[in-house]
Amino acid sequence: MYKAKVNITLRKSILDPKGKAAHHALQNLGLKNVKDVRIGKFIEMNIDADSQNEARELAETACTQLLANEVMEDFQVEIEE
Amino acid sequence: MYKAKVNITLRKSILDPKGKAAHHALQNLGLKNVKDVRIGKFIEMNIDADSQNEARELAETACTQLLANEVMEDFQVEIEE
Repeated sequence: MYKAKVNITLRKSILDPKGKAAHHALQNLGLKNVKDVRIGKFIEMNIDADSQNEARELAETACTQLLANEVMEDFQVEIEE
Repeated sequence: MYKAKVNITLRKSILDPKGKAAHHALQNLGLKNVKDVRIGKFIEMNIDADSQNEARELAETACTQLLANEVMEDFQVEIEE
């Protein structure tokens, strides 16, 4: 059993209203040194596979088929035992 | 300028309906080897600080004051230059 950790982020060119709102709220709380905020998704999956490579392929398939919208989002997969 | 990467996850004891729905959808797509899915948030911040420690403290303050709900969520902060 492997654990896949996936970070899904909006592409740099896409406006991130959630991040902008969080940034604004942090400024109002006095955290002026926080300069930019972008909010994405973090997904953990347990994957039953024979090898790390097979687990990675499955996680990437899950991302492209369902979890990420590749038009607007990038994703990064990390596999742990 | 440092980059803070924050993973916010629901505590293990808290039910994750979004994750359950994604898991179910992956099963329907034929990805039977994905055994458990949990969905959290991934937040990137640019932080203006003099040291890595100062950046970490600021990022943690942002999490406890605004970004994470510590009753239900855990967070993990990573700082990069």
